[in-house]
Amino acid sequence: MKAEIITIGDELLLGQVIDTNSAWLGQELNALGIHVHYKTAVSDDEQAILDTLKLASNRSSIIIMTGGLGPTRDDITKHTLCRFFNTHLVLNQDVLSFVKEIFTKRNLPMLESNNQQAMLPAIADVLWNRSGTAPGMWFDQNNTIYISMPGVPFEMKTIFSEEVIPKLKSRFSFPAIIHRTLQTCSIGESFLAKKIEHIENQLPSNIKLAYLPAVGSVRLRFSAYGNDEILLKESLNEIIAKVYNEISEYIYAEGEVSLSETIGKLLKAKGKTLATAESCTGGFLAHQITLSPGSSAYFLGSVIAYHNSIKQNELHVSSTTLKEHGAVSEACVLEMAQAIRKKTGADYGLSTSGIAGPDGGTDAKPVGTVWIGFASETKSFAKVFNMGDNRERTILRTALMAMDILRKELID
Amino acid sequence: MKAEIITIGDELLLGQVIDTNSAWLGQELNALGIHVHYKTAVSDDEQAILDTLKLASNRSSIIIMTGGLGPTRDDITKHTLCRFFNTHLVLNQDVLSFVKEIFTKRNLPMLESNNQQAMLPAIADVLWNRSGTAPGMWFDQNNTIYISMPGVPFEMKTIFSEEVIPKLKSRFSFPAIIHRTLQTCSIGESFLAKKIEHIENQLPSNIKLAYLPAVGSVRLRFSAYGNDEILLKESLNEIIAKVYNEISEYIYAEGEVSLSETIGKLLKAKGKTLATAESCTGGFLAHQITLSPGSSAYFLGSVIAYHNSIKQNELHVSSTTLKEHGAVSEACVLEMAQAIRKKTGADYGLSTSGIAGPDGGTDAKPVGTVWIGFASETKSFAKVFNMGDNRERTILRTALMAMDILRKELID
Repeated sequence: MKAEIITIGDELLLGQVIDTNSAWLGQELNALGIHVHYKTAVSDDEQAILDTLKLASNRSSIIIMTGGLGPTRDDITKHTLCRFFNTHLVLNQDVLSFVKEIFTKRNLPMLESNNQQAMLPAIADVLWNRSGTAPGMWFDQNNTIYISMPGVPFEMKTIFSEEVIPKLKSRFSFPAIIHRTLQTCSIGESFLAKKIEHIENQLPSNIKLAYLPAVGSVRLRFSAYGNDEILLKESLNEIIAKVYNEISEYIYAEGEVSLSETIGKLLKAKGKTLATAESCTGGFLAHQITLSPGSSAYFLGSVIAYHNSIKQNELHVSSTTLKEHGAVSEACVLEMAQAIRKKTGADYGLSTSGIAGPDGGTDAKPVGTVWIGFASETKSFAKVFNMGDNRERTILRTALMAMDILRKELID
Repeated sequence: MKAEIITIGDELLLGQVIDTNSAWLGQELNALGIHVHYKTAVSDDEQAILDTLKLASNRSSIIIMTGGLGPTRDDITKHTLCRFFNTHLVLNQDVLSFVKEIFTKRNLPMLESNNQQAMLPAIADVLWNRSGTAPGMWFDQNNTIYISMPGVPFEMKTIFSEEVIPKLKSRFSFPAIIHRTLQTCSIGESFLAKKIEHIENQLPSNIKLAYLPAVGSVRLRFSAYGNDEILLKESLNEIIAKVYNEISEYIYAEGEVSLSETIGKLLKAKGKTLATAESCTGGFLAHQITLSPGSSAYFLGSVIAYHNSIKQNELHVSSTTLKEHGAVSEACVLEMAQAIRKKTGADYGLSTSGIAGPDGGTDAKPVGTVWIGFASETKSFAKVFNMGDNRERTILRTALMAMDILRKELID
């Protein structure tokens, strides 16, 4: 089964927006066993969209469009779809009520342009959008499925997960595919690949391994294809047991679970609490932890000591430490981790201090130098890293590394 | 002049890699006045590449390919180009010497696969690659330019900047194109569109307006096309002055500038400092502020008072306030904003407290209810919002709104 993705919007061609939607869709479709063989980005131009749709309909059974469904006039996807399918827009009362409800809830007035969002091509099935006012659309024409969704990533993801996947599953019969994803961190892709090279080399032909790297973490996705689901499960179990044998220390979870959710679960299970004292991460570590719903059960809070005066006044870092070792030092993050534990009464304290850059580096402490501190009732230690020369990635890597240090202590 | 981009590689279609190359190329080409009207991603498949090249040659004067030139797969693009142009590979002695030199310098042995990198289609001009061993290629056939470059971003960028741009400039004469981007926040796309509808209706045909929405913010991009650069600038100036007249309060910057950079500039210019006291944003507000390089000049730090004990002990929120009004209340965020100012000695204090969800909502305070507090030496106030029912977006919207509240006070 061949699919293709069409992304609509001048902003994609001008390069003002990096298209992350189609990569996400590629992963999701691939997980269903659907092969994406083309991706095309077109401008907000009716003829260009029509030409691309025509081409796509000759080579793909599933055509997925994103973008061009907003309430403003540069969004022309719906009108173009009407022309392509030789149909017209009609008011969908259910969608109108749904959109009205959203505005009522938020206490905002409805505009005429918002009413337009309830106008849909007569032959379209509605794909409900729980995350916004623009619904998606599903067309089933000449044995080809056409799907149109908004380009805003979280809206597109909601519609695809909640509406499109179930509809695709009921429309087509897919071969059995089983995926298992191992979440790893604190190790680079090539090192990971080297460590499990011998397992990868011996994979049977119906089992594929994909490396899905992100900053500071790599997901390993094993996909098994075949007809006998039980057999597939068994062979995956065997392979994954071997992988654990080689790299268990780097695997923090299975499935779509974040590192912050993992430490949240571990803390909850032990009935323990956490507080952070952050300098270079500037609140990003606390943000990662508090992104998880229910984190108030185990996360008490943080002191972000960006300025040294706050390190001294709020975290009691000694002036000797700052004078002799500087803020980016083992002594400083140890004092920070211990102080935040005491101050908040948390069981665990985590601290960060580093040079995120682009300025502030020296020969002894180049940009990317980061100290991370850990403190519990019985133990405290600090580790130093070089996180590279990109500010944003240094902040992200430091937060992940700090959480992984806590994770290892929690499973010890 | 119309261009299109073809990216080659299975990893793009599987979603294992997010394509940032084509966004960068889109910006660069656009800055030259070259209109990118299509971007296509194809797999490492000869027929698919040939089909896409044929289609592109019928609609574009400049065709830019990236990918398929690496050491593991280096045959597919070059062989396919030979087939497309009906030519053959020949050894290029200059490229061979260049590649050999790189290996000698790095003290690495040459492999057979590295020799292959000096084999180029007979009719290609070499595009020298100072950043790697795979050269780019330039073909000038039937009034169409075909450019092939490696997919590794920094190699592609080197070749494009150092080789492609000068060659394009000497081959073509370009028309003028001017873009201006207005950054807005605290107003939705449809409300914005309504407010400037009359301006949009009167835009001359050579000036286009695009709405580029993100969570909590919308960019307005005006593009002017023509031959007389001075005239284009004047007419854009006139239109943008009208836009300012209507919506100046929502415009926080021009160009590619974030809201946190904007408040950073304003604080620096006034020699003032900021500290935050965060509950529902959990550190994200501080993170947004500290993402900007140099933020240590004006951002002192934060207390993240996730647990009420920290609101009481560190921010002196009174137990009466918590008992009578709760943590999500005007009284609480006012006390928080005032306390963080005093505690850190900052000129401005910002505070947040809300129900990010998914749990914790009540009839009186549903999920999404957020209070934001502001305190300066002379003034303090609080505002309440409903940020919707998605945890991540509530956090993001709250941080943006808090920064916008500060921005408005700073320009007052």
